Amino acid sequence: MGPGPSDVHPRVLAAMAQPTIGHLDSSFIDLMDEVKVLLQYAFQTENSITFPLSAPGSAGMEACFANLVEPGDKVVVCQNGVFGGRMKENVERCGGIPIMVEDEWGSAIDLEKVEAALSSNPDARILAFVHAETSTGVESDARGLSDLAFQHDCLTLVDAVTSLGGSPVLVDEWGLDAVYSGSQKCLSCAPGLSPITFSERALQKVKNRRSKVQSWFMDLNLIMAYWGKGKRRVYHHTAPVNALYGLHESLVMLREEGLENAWDRHLRNHLVLKDGLEALGIEFLVRKDQRLPQLNAVRIPENLDDAEVRSGLMKYYNLEIGAGLGPLKGNIWRIGLMGYSSRPENILLCVGAFESLIKTCSALATVHKTLESR
Amino acid sequence: MGPGPSDVHPRVLAAMAQPTIGHLDSSFIDLMDEVKVLLQYAFQTENSITFPLSAPGSAGMEACFANLVEPGDKVVVCQNGVFGGRMKENVERCGGIPIMVEDEWGSAIDLEKVEAALSSNPDARILAFVHAETSTGVESDARGLSDLAFQHDCLTLVDAVTSLGGSPVLVDEWGLDAVYSGSQKCLSCAPGLSPITFSERALQKVKNRRSKVQSWFMDLNLIMAYWGKGKRRVYHHTAPVNALYGLHESLVMLREEGLENAWDRHLRNHLVLKDGLEALGIEFLVRKDQRLPQLNAVRIPENLDDAEVRSGLMKYYNLEIGAGLGPLKGNIWRIGLMGYSSRPENILLCVGAFESLIKTCSALATVHKTLESR
Repeated sequence: MGPGPSDVHPRVLAAMAQPTIGHLDSSFIDLMDEVKVLLQYAFQTENSITFPLSAPGSAGMEACFANLVEPGDKVVVCQNGVFGGRMKENVERCGGIPIMVEDEWGSAIDLEKVEAALSSNPDARILAFVHAETSTGVESDARGLSDLAFQHDCLTLVDAVTSLGGSPVLVDEWGLDAVYSGSQKCLSCAPGLSPITFSERALQKVKNRRSKVQSWFMDLNLIMAYWGKGKRRVYHHTAPVNALYGLHESLVMLREEGLENAWDRHLRNHLVLKDGLEALGIEFLVRKDQRLPQLNAVRIPENLDDAEVRSGLMKYYNLEIGAGLGPLKGNIWRIGLMGYSSRPENILLCVGAFESLIKTCSALATVHKTLESR
Repeated sequence: MGPGPSDVHPRVLAAMAQPTIGHLDSSFIDLMDEVKVLLQYAFQTENSITFPLSAPGSAGMEACFANLVEPGDKVVVCQNGVFGGRMKENVERCGGIPIMVEDEWGSAIDLEKVEAALSSNPDARILAFVHAETSTGVESDARGLSDLAFQHDCLTLVDAVTSLGGSPVLVDEWGLDAVYSGSQKCLSCAPGLSPITFSERALQKVKNRRSKVQSWFMDLNLIMAYWGKGKRRVYHHTAPVNALYGLHESLVMLREEGLENAWDRHLRNHLVLKDGLEALGIEFLVRKDQRLPQLNAVRIPENLDDAEVRSGLMKYYNLEIGAGLGPLKGNIWRIGLMGYSSRPENILLCVGAFESLIKTCSALATVHKTLESR
């Protein structure tokens, strides 16, 4: 129950153990085609450029920047956690100029600040932001940010690593342009793949570049010759065949459950966990209307030791939760209820484990105090 | 029996289906440490920077160039097949200047030409070459090329995708500096990971760069904080946990068999296949002393149709072999005897299938001729 990878469903694990076939085998091409259609469903898009990059979400982020940013390009980057900072790093490594809009870690992106940054940088052509900040459990208003970008003639470049499959990511309805995610969060697949979708507008920008994409491996122009339409596929790299079996199965399961039902499940389980944790006196970092149901960031109660509790959960309950990152290190825990991990039995396990550990820690503290006062 | 992915051993498939644990879990860190030691064995090196990149071999190639090449750097690139061409592309995308040394597809790299290129480009600091050309089945003299590079104060950047585990790759003894491979060839693991090793000399070059590595995802300085020494690992990206279970198991199996035994097995099976194919009148593209035992490139006999034979092998024998690439398209087949695929039963299947198909094609041709002459 950390911030991902989430538990992987046995059906997905079994799929990954099927015999490896060739990456140009016609049966495998059929599977790729199904993966693309299923990802279009997950992203709620008709974008033809919708496929999984053969590398983790961090590479998905880089692929979006590497394709869209050229040397000298100004990019407005919103930062309210770890991954906004990584976006800045990516812009710089592509030779772009990041215009930073910073918000407190644990708060959503402030649309007024973004509006101001876009207004004072009329030559910016990309607005990059994290929809669901994995480091803080905050959801930002992707639709509102997309509207602002559109008004200022900018493309949106969006991190949906933690949101996809767990809460609405409506690519077409919200008008998002380049979106990347990860296989290991709410899709309940093993880590290692990064679903990506590019709008027609974003694709035009890639096609009209003045310079080649600096990464050969991530160049969409080349990748799409392999992931593109029709029976004729051009070899680009050897696809991670078994990993794609797994992603395929996880997407089939999402389709079976239904996207809306998956969102509902994540929300309902979050509310139950919240009640349980609050009953133990554990408070949430993020204000109610900005919380991600799949990633519960809670403040570490003053009397408890971060590392002690996390290692106790691991040792006695075989339960992993996430630590805080950056300025939140030592201040918060991150409890994932993602994908297959978002189940009532996990909530019971988690709340029960916390209750027991808090009692133990409290009892031990009493003993310590008594000993010290002797 | 294509040019990779090879058949994956059931033990490796089973390993990939084990439950996913956290990428920062201490049990997983232990597994990472074992993978590094096992890869040092496979590469025959004591390089501390020896790890699997979380992406396919093509990304491994790019990682080597992105870390070692800076804008304006001259790189001598040998091309005698597809992958030398991809190296050129990588040099250019890193802002480097490729100095090409070209040899015929199907021949080994000519050391005299390389010597001449190094002599006339004394400012070049990298010699890049493919040890085992997957597109042609040719092995080049890595030790000889490394000696030349050393004499001219160049680092070597070496593609060992198809050689690692199938024929000797003696990184330390030969003095190779940056070497990348793939999980899906002679290691018999699923595709998706790229084992990489960097010598101390190569690492110094990365550390003394004038500019940042243009790829965040492939920046060795950052990756090694996660794959480095000791218990303390810094999160970089979410590692492909299940894929690494698989690689670990495949490397354990290589250790059990013994590297020398694995090389012997690949060589012995190659010789048997060669005898069988030659008995059917099928000739090899590559001269005897330059052949890779794990990748048999054979000329398509004049009376046979490339696509017809390959689809017949697939349809009637469930047997995949590789087509020719580039100038060799339609002229050769590529028959892999890699890793777990390098077994006597596969040789029997392959030779038997060819014998039967050749007879069928010949009989059908006779019928056609008779019908036409009526």
